[in-house]
Amino acid sequence: MQSIKSKVAIIGAGPSGLLLGQLLAKQGIDNVIIERVSGDYVLGRIRAGILEQGLVDLLREAGVSERMDAEGHVHDGFAISYYGKPYRIDLNKLTEGKTVMCYGQTEVTRDLMAARAEQGQTTYYSSSKVALHDIESAQPSVTFEQDGVTYQLECDYIAGCDGFHGVSRKSIPAEKRQEFERVYPFGWLGILSETPPVADELIYCKTERGFALASQRSSTRSRYYLQVPLTDKVEDWSDQRFWDELKHRLPQESADALVTGPSIEKSIAPLRSFVCEPMQLGKLFLVGDAAHIVPPTGAKGLNLAASDVAILYGLLCKEYKDNEANASQRYSELALSRVWQAERFSWWMSNMLHDFKDDAGEANNMDQKTFARFMKSELDFYLSHEEGQKVIAMQYVGLPYPQI
Amino acid sequence: MQSIKSKVAIIGAGPSGLLLGQLLAKQGIDNVIIERVSGDYVLGRIRAGILEQGLVDLLREAGVSERMDAEGHVHDGFAISYYGKPYRIDLNKLTEGKTVMCYGQTEVTRDLMAARAEQGQTTYYSSSKVALHDIESAQPSVTFEQDGVTYQLECDYIAGCDGFHGVSRKSIPAEKRQEFERVYPFGWLGILSETPPVADELIYCKTERGFALASQRSSTRSRYYLQVPLTDKVEDWSDQRFWDELKHRLPQESADALVTGPSIEKSIAPLRSFVCEPMQLGKLFLVGDAAHIVPPTGAKGLNLAASDVAILYGLLCKEYKDNEANASQRYSELALSRVWQAERFSWWMSNMLHDFKDDAGEANNMDQKTFARFMKSELDFYLSHEEGQKVIAMQYVGLPYPQI
Repeated sequence: MQSIKSKVAIIGAGPSGLLLGQLLAKQGIDNVIIERVSGDYVLGRIRAGILEQGLVDLLREAGVSERMDAEGHVHDGFAISYYGKPYRIDLNKLTEGKTVMCYGQTEVTRDLMAARAEQGQTTYYSSSKVALHDIESAQPSVTFEQDGVTYQLECDYIAGCDGFHGVSRKSIPAEKRQEFERVYPFGWLGILSETPPVADELIYCKTERGFALASQRSSTRSRYYLQVPLTDKVEDWSDQRFWDELKHRLPQESADALVTGPSIEKSIAPLRSFVCEPMQLGKLFLVGDAAHIVPPTGAKGLNLAASDVAILYGLLCKEYKDNEANASQRYSELALSRVWQAERFSWWMSNMLHDFKDDAGEANNMDQKTFARFMKSELDFYLSHEEGQKVIAMQYVGLPYPQI
Repeated sequence: MQSIKSKVAIIGAGPSGLLLGQLLAKQGIDNVIIERVSGDYVLGRIRAGILEQGLVDLLREAGVSERMDAEGHVHDGFAISYYGKPYRIDLNKLTEGKTVMCYGQTEVTRDLMAARAEQGQTTYYSSSKVALHDIESAQPSVTFEQDGVTYQLECDYIAGCDGFHGVSRKSIPAEKRQEFERVYPFGWLGILSETPPVADELIYCKTERGFALASQRSSTRSRYYLQVPLTDKVEDWSDQRFWDELKHRLPQESADALVTGPSIEKSIAPLRSFVCEPMQLGKLFLVGDAAHIVPPTGAKGLNLAASDVAILYGLLCKEYKDNEANASQRYSELALSRVWQAERFSWWMSNMLHDFKDDAGEANNMDQKTFARFMKSELDFYLSHEEGQKVIAMQYVGLPYPQI
């Protein structure tokens, strides 16, 4: 058993763990990251690509924004196609100057990994048997194995950045947490292709055939999604079938302009809303997907993890730099207020944009067709009035981070 | 059998039937109203008391606004109490000058009845065996009995203003209509009392104990409501118990100011969302509750009936005055666009403001506690941001009537 020490143990080297580590390191608060898989495996995950201003600012503060600022695309707006009729949500105008940044989560992770390596910060990749100990005591610790060596990491705090399936949340005894969940009755079939995006901005499509999203990673790489039944398999969807169906769901002008090509990634992801309360116990803080999952409609997943990081980072600075004892005990309450707003927005966007015909939907005591009419008129209302568009836009660019 | 003739047969002498009759009569379009019960019975119904500007304008156009303009109270806003913290929705400011009128539906009905009697327009009260015939032909008719005499009324059109349980909707064959419904798992216990209202404006209360509403009919007559389980009976609720519970749900300042007194009416009403599509078949038009029901949250019932009346009146004027043949065939489509918006608003307000703990709620595949968190954060969002308050206000004062 090899003993090591650090102020903060970070479980998980995804973007939230890396970002937290980078921010803390810049303030001289030393930290160690423990990751179950390899760095290459982490980089192989395909995730969203829309960054709120808050996250963009954090990356700049962390000193890892150079490539994002050079290669990312600022998006002033996006479109929602309502049964073929596109409405542009002019983020810039509707929010008085706010925008979002189109830059892949994979690229964010790559930049953070490079910065961490360059600064010689410690990361234990491919670690197994990760276990948290004594989280409610003054001396928590983490044990894990790497290359046949067992380590014990003593620390002040543990940041659980290890995702929905990670060990961190499960280290809070079941009777001390409450979980909230909504599982959706459909999935997103996504493909990545080396083709120019069909439009400069994203297009969310509400159609009689189900939802579709035209997204992108760069000016030469596209990401498209189709709502599909959960029973569908990737093998059911040839590239040709995907493109054909996508053309049915895009507005006509976009369908005509669509450039197709071979897929370089194709997968089906389920949609889930999930929140764990509280987001901390003793010395353990849950950050990002470890504490909450949003459906991808509205691109809030990474952004919500980032606001957790910002809050935890701010509170830890208060403790370590400003000598404000116990500041971090406010983490859960501060984080949850914003978490529930993003959860609600993602749930609402998902409800409005998808087709629930294979499901009772949100519709207990109400048949699916009634729920469908409500959602159709809901979307109609919010798109047709500037007041409604503002409500969409202000949440899409991201609500302000809580005052710490 | 006594034969009579009229351009328009109106089934039902509630406020929509009377208002339509009055407007048509002013344009010289003769009409006959057939009502199942007596005029006194109609006036005994206690209903809402908040009139949108559109209805106020219609009553003025119909020449029956004198008493409303003298005795009604213009409300510039209302309050929503969020777990004891009141937020004022400043309708006037948020909608750039729009307001609502506080004037009881019973009084509107009384004014319309008086005007109709004064002008000698024909109304058959206490009519039985009302039946509609040949509504899809060029010569529809209505038969009914009054005081032992059977009448046959030949007409061009039939306006079904006879409410949810009336004969009109059922005269459209089931295979030619589609019904949408949501039944809520609670009721509203309402009392009327000769006490001054607790505040100048309405207060909608979201609390851990369930919803409450402080409403009013005049400066000396109050109307209060409590959300109660559907299994409760009026006999379960003494006046004392009602006032005690109401004080728990009002903001503290209001609870302290509440003046109580004996109830002069007490009843429990279920809550329902309902829409029938289409709202017409051949020569029959469904108006108001005959075609749709909203839960009372947001006071849209009478106002929605009024917009149906405005649309049907406008279209019939086009036919009879402007010689635009078949104008009335656009009725259903025009009316439904606004109906669904008001249905959605009432459903949304009901979801946000009530407690669903006795129910799976809107929550298929989602437990009640998750739905409750979504609704709590929804209300929080809309109250805490001016953009959200505008969305509430613009719908509360009433969306514009469709262009005819």
